[in-house]
Amino acid sequence: MAPRGLENGPGNGLERLFSGRARAAQRSELAALFALAERPDVVSFAGGFPDPAWFLPECEQVAARLLREHRGSALQYGPTPGLTAFREYVAERCRRQGMEVSPAEVVVTSGALQGLDLVAKVFLEPGDPVVVECPTYLGAIQTLSTYEARLVEVPGDEVGLVPEALDETLRDLERAGRPAKFVYVVPSFQNPTGLTLPLDRRRRLLEVASRHGVPVVEDHAYAELRYEGEQVPALKALDREGLVILLGTFSKIFSPGLRLGWTAAPAAVTEKIILFKQGTDQCSSTLGQLMALEYGRLGLVERQIAVTTAGLREKKRVTLEALDRRFGPLVRRTEPEGGFYTWLSLPEGVDTVRMLERAVRDHRVAYVAGPAFYVGRRGSNQLRLCYSLLPVGLIDEGVRRLRECYEAKSAGVR
Amino acid sequence: MAPRGLENGPGNGLERLFSGRARAAQRSELAALFALAERPDVVSFAGGFPDPAWFLPECEQVAARLLREHRGSALQYGPTPGLTAFREYVAERCRRQGMEVSPAEVVVTSGALQGLDLVAKVFLEPGDPVVVECPTYLGAIQTLSTYEARLVEVPGDEVGLVPEALDETLRDLERAGRPAKFVYVVPSFQNPTGLTLPLDRRRRLLEVASRHGVPVVEDHAYAELRYEGEQVPALKALDREGLVILLGTFSKIFSPGLRLGWTAAPAAVTEKIILFKQGTDQCSSTLGQLMALEYGRLGLVERQIAVTTAGLREKKRVTLEALDRRFGPLVRRTEPEGGFYTWLSLPEGVDTVRMLERAVRDHRVAYVAGPAFYVGRRGSNQLRLCYSLLPVGLIDEGVRRLRECYEAKSAGVR
Repeated sequence: MAPRGLENGPGNGLERLFSGRARAAQRSELAALFALAERPDVVSFAGGFPDPAWFLPECEQVAARLLREHRGSALQYGPTPGLTAFREYVAERCRRQGMEVSPAEVVVTSGALQGLDLVAKVFLEPGDPVVVECPTYLGAIQTLSTYEARLVEVPGDEVGLVPEALDETLRDLERAGRPAKFVYVVPSFQNPTGLTLPLDRRRRLLEVASRHGVPVVEDHAYAELRYEGEQVPALKALDREGLVILLGTFSKIFSPGLRLGWTAAPAAVTEKIILFKQGTDQCSSTLGQLMALEYGRLGLVERQIAVTTAGLREKKRVTLEALDRRFGPLVRRTEPEGGFYTWLSLPEGVDTVRMLERAVRDHRVAYVAGPAFYVGRRGSNQLRLCYSLLPVGLIDEGVRRLRECYEAKSAGVR
Repeated sequence: MAPRGLENGPGNGLERLFSGRARAAQRSELAALFALAERPDVVSFAGGFPDPAWFLPECEQVAARLLREHRGSALQYGPTPGLTAFREYVAERCRRQGMEVSPAEVVVTSGALQGLDLVAKVFLEPGDPVVVECPTYLGAIQTLSTYEARLVEVPGDEVGLVPEALDETLRDLERAGRPAKFVYVVPSFQNPTGLTLPLDRRRRLLEVASRHGVPVVEDHAYAELRYEGEQVPALKALDREGLVILLGTFSKIFSPGLRLGWTAAPAAVTEKIILFKQGTDQCSSTLGQLMALEYGRLGLVERQIAVTTAGLREKKRVTLEALDRRFGPLVRRTEPEGGFYTWLSLPEGVDTVRMLERAVRDHRVAYVAGPAFYVGRRGSNQLRLCYSLLPVGLIDEGVRRLRECYEAKSAGVR
């Protein structure tokens, strides 16, 4: 066989060796929105970042003390599943939320998304169906696509996922001879809709999953950020059959920059997650784990949650008031009781993807266009507003620019 | 189709849904050795950890100042490829070592192993051949196995990889119709052998790779830890065709616990690495990046390298002297000029895997058995000694215990 040449210059030609998943992977909207969030003149409702004003100044003393007194362990490798004391702390926090989780079932991950990546490694072969909400978290779409999963959307209504529709979807997949590997859901303060699945739907969702023998991957990222209404137990807290795999994170209650999440899963799944974690990044930050542990011991996690939810409550109020005042009946929006997001439906015919370019360029306002959250590129008249990062004083101005952009759009097109 | 039951109790039965890679994955020796390293009564030559005494006390002030003055960014999400200033710093360090690397070619990873994981995602389909040294880093064997790669060992001699043997291996694979996707090598202070590939072999290795059009993944983890002999340029520094993908890390020159590595690869590969990084853990620790950047600015990385290499030089001397004194001609060993490891060959017939259990239990000494570093479970009379973590004063005692264990073994078996 003739040697393969590299006629096209340095590094070119390597594409011929790429995997199918690499050929298929394209730069995502997530990347674009992270980039947008960096432009200072844009009022950005795009990235799902916590407001840095909520980070507690105590982090300085906590880090300094750890590095003074425990430098040798804080900067050293840790065990792959996480530091024992930290796993105990995570399990205890889960138990306080009504979930039966033992420290041995906890694996510390580098954010909740790594948890999903590892779960995907455990379950997915190319072409395997995974059932997701509609719309769903765009990061999950991206991660699951890397494993060449076949993402199957299950219809929702104004409350969220409809268990009977899930039942039907799972049955259809079984009949087609390729049953779903798992269901991925964000039941609390969903990304992107902000909706929270009510208790009775959670129970029926679990009944359906149990009847089909399908595990449920529960993304718990925002669940502790309730600022209104009644607490609803996690699916994991309602699960009596070991069907729920929880993805948790400290990104929204402590720090995203330290990359700390966890999985809480049945033993057989946990064992494989640990193996794959080892081959992926060996362990998560030990300094981060020790800092979060110390935050927990000093009551600072709970204090930061209180600061965060107070901030979110105010920002949500200002955002929704501005939307109602400036858009009125032109827009349908969700009414979140927690989390970072509200979800807008504009009149049919509006194209939020095309509008976004003009929004950023001409009106200096940003959001994430609806189709990013659908597998089948629906949601062209929808968009996600994230109100967590913006200063309260900029929110109304942002909504004003959005309306201005919407008007210009209408004027230009019609 | 009948619903699938979960007759076997909580969480049981999910195994039926596992992927092929999950079914194949078994608890590795790496996990076992991380566990061993935690037992205080064992003199452990096992885990490849830096001595925490080499971590600089300045870390406290550096972290405290960053969290005081830049809390909002240090604890926040960062861009997926890494903070711009940090990528510039990494590229500049590479250029100082003679490598042509631009900041845009750098992706910050959570350790060098995540770099390999991402490269595997870019290139590998199940069954794809990857050529590795023999023996090679066991973490790489594990990571590549997760992608169901077919690992093909290329024979080495007492100097390391033999380029002509690589040529033959690549040709055989081409003839068989399934050419190698890449070659993975640790050319400097190799894990596990401690050997460093001489300049002429590096040149010939690159010639061979170029002739076959096969990229070379260069694990640079220990390359900056030379304590004797002449510096040899990295493969990346010799590469004129954009064939080398460098895997770097701050784990051995700053802190493993902050999980900071990088890839430096041709643009087409870098683009895909960034996409997959995003779906894996979104970004690496921002606090860690800022700390390493500040270390660099203050000259502390170079100071820690000086402290580390001085420590390693002394520990290597004590280790080799103890081996020569206590084992004499019974053992063949390598003569490392840098890094953490020496590699021992005991007389034929010794089984270092079986010996290890008794070593830990009866003699309270640990190492990593040779077969862990081979794909085909060869190396049964070989073992890796890591001398980086042990206090100098314990090394001779550790080697004494090893000899005692070897004697007991010989007495018991023969």
